[in-house]
Amino acid sequence: MSKPAIILVKPQLGENIGMAARAMLNFGLDDLRLVAPRDGWPNPDAGPACAGADAVLAAAKVFATTEEAIADLTCVYAATARRRDMTKPALGVAEAGEKIRNLSRGRAGILFGPEASGLANADVVLADAILSIPVNPDFSSLNIAFAVGLVAYECFRGEKACVKAPDEEGDGPATKTDMHALFKHIEGELDERGYFHPEERRTAKLQTLRNLLQSSGFSHQQIATLRGVIKALTGKK
Amino acid sequence: MSKPAIILVKPQLGENIGMAARAMLNFGLDDLRLVAPRDGWPNPDAGPACAGADAVLAAAKVFATTEEAIADLTCVYAATARRRDMTKPALGVAEAGEKIRNLSRGRAGILFGPEASGLANADVVLADAILSIPVNPDFSSLNIAFAVGLVAYECFRGEKACVKAPDEEGDGPATKTDMHALFKHIEGELDERGYFHPEERRTAKLQTLRNLLQSSGFSHQQIATLRGVIKALTGKK
Repeated sequence: MSKPAIILVKPQLGENIGMAARAMLNFGLDDLRLVAPRDGWPNPDAGPACAGADAVLAAAKVFATTEEAIADLTCVYAATARRRDMTKPALGVAEAGEKIRNLSRGRAGILFGPEASGLANADVVLADAILSIPVNPDFSSLNIAFAVGLVAYECFRGEKACVKAPDEEGDGPATKTDMHALFKHIEGELDERGYFHPEERRTAKLQTLRNLLQSSGFSHQQIATLRGVIKALTGKK
Repeated sequence: MSKPAIILVKPQLGENIGMAARAMLNFGLDDLRLVAPRDGWPNPDAGPACAGADAVLAAAKVFATTEEAIADLTCVYAATARRRDMTKPALGVAEAGEKIRNLSRGRAGILFGPEASGLANADVVLADAILSIPVNPDFSSLNIAFAVGLVAYECFRGEKACVKAPDEEGDGPATKTDMHALFKHIEGELDERGYFHPEERRTAKLQTLRNLLQSSGFSHQQIATLRGVIKALTGKK
């Protein structure tokens, strides 16, 4: 089994963080990451709610931005109930769990948004795919700890000794660090050339571009090639 | 879908009853039965925790004994984590969910015990089979509302109104014509800038680049975006 990281973006209630940690450990997950938790960290409400999963809370890492929180991951899912107008693959939780479980190289993570509002588009854009949980359309708001637990359950399901694929060529999937460097590089060059003009189109254009690059499944080496291409096109060394 | 009843035997915390109601309704279940709830019924802690599933709480039926609570059911599962010295079939939650979903006659129900102790043997005996949730053996205690929700999820599975990726609607996968136009465009620009120099590296570099672009799975619209990016970077209209 490949164990994914659980990333809670701007979580609001300490109690929910504690319950999420409990649900994670129920299914063997222990890598909890918090992006800018509303009430700071540690949070005194988390401990009592975790029902003994204190080690998960103690090891939780806090990040200022989602980008930093996912920097070492190779495959990121955004858990979201709302439809997004984005060109981004969407998977059900069972299918995503199977993919994560069977990941032979790299490391996966799942993003969950704040309780009240869910993930912002700027966070969804950073993900490779959208993960959705099939629910009653007339009552679709899941408790965040429940959603985390369900993902953990689907990753744990039928747990098999994962057969690791041998390192075939040396090149591996791109990490989010590779990907963010590519975003920054290409966006910087485009910005210099007025690509994002007019200003009110900037966000939409950025999203289209990031979704395009994210959807590619590029390897680490392919990103390096692409950055060489950009350097050649812009005439910079 | 055949909708099972959820029977909480001697539940302790009103908050857990509320959260269980929410998790039930998330997956379309609405028949909640309470056997001798510790703090009586209604319980003022249940409402705030149900997050809008008030109708489930309002319709909850209270019984003095488990036998009365399951009197109208034809197939009853006992949700329990502990091993029992009983000759009783045992099913995983996924398998039980499938059986319940596909029940063509009669009505199913699932028994859940009190938070602290789980179901008494006297209650398990009343069930047709034991339902177990596969968990981390080193940290197996599930929140009761989570367990209820997981059973509801497994009963609801396959009901899913499939979430369509937005990209299936207007935009389609790139044709080879799109792809070859992209090759020609990007290779032409790179050639002008000496990217394929020295000549003996040209073939290898072309292959690397074409493999990279081919591997991407870009859509028709994404190729158009990418070609706009190349135009911006090369300063051509």
